[in-house]
Amino acid sequence: DYKGLTVESADGDFKFNVGGRIQIDANFADEDQTRLGSGAEIRRARLKVEGTMWKIWGYKFQMDFGEEETEIKDAYIKFKGLKPVTFTLGQQKLPFTLQSWTSNNWQVFQERALLNSFIEDDAIGRRRLGLKISTHGNNWTALAGLFGEGADHGGQFNESWAPMGRVTFAPIAKATRVLHLGAGAYYRHYEHDPELVFSAHPEAHIVPNLVSTGVISETEDALLLGGELSTVWGPFHAQGEYLHVKVGRKNSLPEPNFNGWYVQTGYFLTGESRNYEPAKGRYGRIIPQRIVSQGGWGAWELAFRYSTIDLEDNGILGGVESNFTAGLNWYATPSVMFRANYIHAETNPSSIAAGVGIAEDINIYTVRGQIVF
Amino acid sequence: DYKGLTVESADGDFKFNVGGRIQIDANFADEDQTRLGSGAEIRRARLKVEGTMWKIWGYKFQMDFGEEETEIKDAYIKFKGLKPVTFTLGQQKLPFTLQSWTSNNWQVFQERALLNSFIEDDAIGRRRLGLKISTHGNNWTALAGLFGEGADHGGQFNESWAPMGRVTFAPIAKATRVLHLGAGAYYRHYEHDPELVFSAHPEAHIVPNLVSTGVISETEDALLLGGELSTVWGPFHAQGEYLHVKVGRKNSLPEPNFNGWYVQTGYFLTGESRNYEPAKGRYGRIIPQRIVSQGGWGAWELAFRYSTIDLEDNGILGGVESNFTAGLNWYATPSVMFRANYIHAETNPSSIAAGVGIAEDINIYTVRGQIVF
Amino acid sequence: DYKGLTVESADGDFKFNVGGRIQIDANFADEDQTRLGSGAEIRRARLKVEGTMWKIWGYKFQMDFGEEETEIKDAYIKFKGLKPVTFTLGQQKLPFTLQSWTSNNWQVFQERALLNSFIEDDAIGRRRLGLKISTHGNNWTALAGLFGEGADHGGQFNESWAPMGRVTFAPIAKATRVLHLGAGAYYRHYEHDPELVFSAHPEAHIVPNLVSTGVISETEDALLLGGELSTVWGPFHAQGEYLHVKVGRKNSLPEPNFNGWYVQTGYFLTGESRNYEPAKGRYGRIIPQRIVSQGGWGAWELAFRYSTIDLEDNGILGGVESNFTAGLNWYATPSVMFRANYIHAETNPSSIAAGVGIAEDINIYTVRGQIVF
Repeated sequence: DYKGLTVESADGDFKFNVGGRIQIDANFADEDQTRLGSGAEIRRARLKVEGTMWKIWGYKFQMDFGEEETEIKDAYIKFKGLKPVTFTLGQQKLPFTLQSWTSNNWQVFQERALLNSFIEDDAIGRRRLGLKISTHGNNWTALAGLFGEGADHGGQFNESWAPMGRVTFAPIAKATRVLHLGAGAYYRHYEHDPELVFSAHPEAHIVPNLVSTGVISETEDALLLGGELSTVWGPFHAQGEYLHVKVGRKNSLPEPNFNGWYVQTGYFLTGESRNYEPAKGRYGRIIPQRIVSQGGWGAWELAFRYSTIDLEDNGILGGVESNFTAGLNWYATPSVMFRANYIHAETNPSSIAAGVGIAEDINIYTVRGQIVF
Repeated sequence: DYKGLTVESADGDFKFNVGGRIQIDANFADEDQTRLGSGAEIRRARLKVEGTMWKIWGYKFQMDFGEEETEIKDAYIKFKGLKPVTFTLGQQKLPFTLQSWTSNNWQVFQERALLNSFIEDDAIGRRRLGLKISTHGNNWTALAGLFGEGADHGGQFNESWAPMGRVTFAPIAKATRVLHLGAGAYYRHYEHDPELVFSAHPEAHIVPNLVSTGVISETEDALLLGGELSTVWGPFHAQGEYLHVKVGRKNSLPEPNFNGWYVQTGYFLTGESRNYEPAKGRYGRIIPQRIVSQGGWGAWELAFRYSTIDLEDNGILGGVESNFTAGLNWYATPSVMFRANYIHAETNPSSIAAGVGIAEDINIYTVRGQIVF
Repeated sequence: DYKGLTVESADGDFKFNVGGRIQIDANFADEDQTRLGSGAEIRRARLKVEGTMWKIWGYKFQMDFGEEETEIKDAYIKFKGLKPVTFTLGQQKLPFTLQSWTSNNWQVFQERALLNSFIEDDAIGRRRLGLKISTHGNNWTALAGLFGEGADHGGQFNESWAPMGRVTFAPIAKATRVLHLGAGAYYRHYEHDPELVFSAHPEAHIVPNLVSTGVISETEDALLLGGELSTVWGPFHAQGEYLHVKVGRKNSLPEPNFNGWYVQTGYFLTGESRNYEPAKGRYGRIIPQRIVSQGGWGAWELAFRYSTIDLEDNGILGGVESNFTAGLNWYATPSVMFRANYIHAETNPSSIAAGVGIAEDINIYTVRGQIVF
């Protein structure tokens, strides 16, 4: 089928899958004060192998070769012997915030909203080594995990640790009607000063950070609290998330609080609905009603987002940024998507910490071709 | 079969293939003026996944781990819905010159002729991000593409752009009789000075460059024009190509013209013919008449090449090099090949720009073991 | 089955396998004089493709992405047309010492004994480019090879060369009764001074080297001689190895001799026997009698090791280290293993060459989760 290569034993106890994704992007920036530049890149080029052995032992191994880097995305062992409870040990994505937990393949926009940069931060982490315990019902999920640092921080002295939890509940969870509520908490404690910096791209990967806290010295811990709300109503869908970040520091240094939020909405002109996965508490693959190679025109989706991040508090002058995005997605088949985004980004001011401190008012145009196999 | 692992759906609309290649090389240089050194290396170690979904959507993802580097070779999406026209979007090889477009697996010699270094140049590019439109008949091909920079130049300010086109025509295109004519043009325009340098190895990968232009400052654009001629006459084959390069510079700086050409010939002692692919305008896999594991001795091929590159013009003193190569190829099976090459290289003088400026007269011996799966 | 994905042609002449391994480790060090630190890492994350074509031509291509590096482990061509003699050309593991030749998947302890650091040394090499000829009988193996430098030393001036040989004999070679004897020799000659340094981790990968010779200048060659003894007696097994290293130097510099040895023993509480492979002269996969997903508790193994390395001789003050290890292995299925090790390491003194020169007395705790597919 369209999910790469899948082989299964007759009794279904053994499964093996090889798959991957390719995302080819171009960004064009209409700059204001700062030189921004344009460019094209392979945003993601991933290969994965996953499988199940003796029914209850799973694994996933996923590499990303995009962005001129070689990175282990997933390398974990899964134990599914106590259903519906599963244990996941190894390098994995932390299921924190709805947009982060939803695959980048099935995001509504080219890049996740600004607040994702809190999680993606090198000292916080979206993918880490650890143990996760998760369970779910028909319309709810609950999980907790304990995570160390990432596979890219291996070796000596990677001693920070982080408990993380998330619960989701969907009072409505039908194919074309969804109401999703979620909340998550993620705490990280540092044994060594992580030289914490929060900064954000204006939702275009090639364009550099416009807001940045600079190094927040003597950081001891960080607490992230998030709230999620999302709905599907036939071809219409809407979603909003809020993230609050509290940084703890040593020696009575002032402790800043930051936050970010976004609201987005979308509409399938061709009648599809966004695909909610209640047992995972996230969205999945869009299946067009009529695909291009079978006489149809695929699925077309219009979407809008307003997104903001505030990196100014208690003496940290990291800047405030607000972005408005309009997007058009074309799902030619369940595996092939093309996208165009227009982003209007304003900073007021941009980061003073980073030595800039000027208000920016820029326009960015991004396009993507994507195939998932 | 021998093409790695191929899985196909019953209706043929879905295909999936995993394959790769391993090339193990050793080079021994008999030096003259400059310290050259010898050594062994994994020249190429590639893994690829390619496939077709819903009949008209194709993809290819190929990584190379050889030469101590990790590189994306191909990462593209292909649309085959308007046959014989196909669209290829992403990181891909530019079909420019016959020897470059022919896979390194099925080259007659260990390394491509000197003129290939014009295309392989970091600022020009044999593999780039872009969109290619190609079509073909029974004995002709035509294609045009627009390319940016490569996947290894991702990010900000990779803003050079390049249209490229190639046409081929084969008045004779039978299994054992071929006459191929081809012409191509490749233009690249730079938004930022690329610090262009043309330089060439003496057709042995481990041996360092003997000729080099040094940095050609303030380069604005480059135009490459190539002509191809190739023939197969039973077990005999011959081929020649010429490449002309014109560099445009800013501020009335002198604009140099460079060129290179080669002629080569080969003969299958065991009676095979070189395998021409008319719909692609290039050569493919050699199938021995009697393979080694089935009582035969595989295919044996003797070959000779004369190749030259001229990097001296208009104040640029990059040197002139001429190489003579004699080669013996043994195709034990369609997948396994062993090769030995003797290269006599002369420079007259070698690069003055690179601060050498002495005539070299060297002998190089190279061997390879190759498996393609 | 549980060996990744295997596809075979009807006549068995063509085989193709995709597989891999993931090892997730954590180390906790209870330090003495030196700051040691703790941490978690992906010890190994490997993907491999191997196969056979036309019955007698084999290949293996294995990448490791663990430890934040991308490394070619194997990239070779195998000729099996003169059974039982096989030829292996390319990047491969040198079959030197029993514990090194036994896969890291099926080691009794988390890390190989201290003496392995002689072979793993950057200037010696456990995996190198070369040609190996091997043969075997029912209860013996013999092989010889000639190796250059590794795939990670590619290019110019990688000109050291090394003959290597090993013989093994098993007077008893039954499923539950084994007596194995082995001997090997490995000589390496350097064309250029390799800046040879011998150093060793205390059998915990994240913990830094405690003993080190520092650079042994003007090294001309090195000779390694090893002896092996191993036995299986039902659920009980025992093994010991000794390795002697002689360094040759130029200009009448003093030539040091180093050595290391270990003895280890283990017992399967659940009755399994260690799996000896007489045709390969090493140990393989443990198959638990009753696996976890089928009502059993897997295989449980208790093991102990004493290991030492002496890097002091003839003016080289590299230190002496002795480790005692106690280990518990749980093989939940033939593919999934969890392990805990306790290591007590003493140095007396630690390396003076490395500028330390103090006696260390430390405790280390290590754990691993492993899946092999």
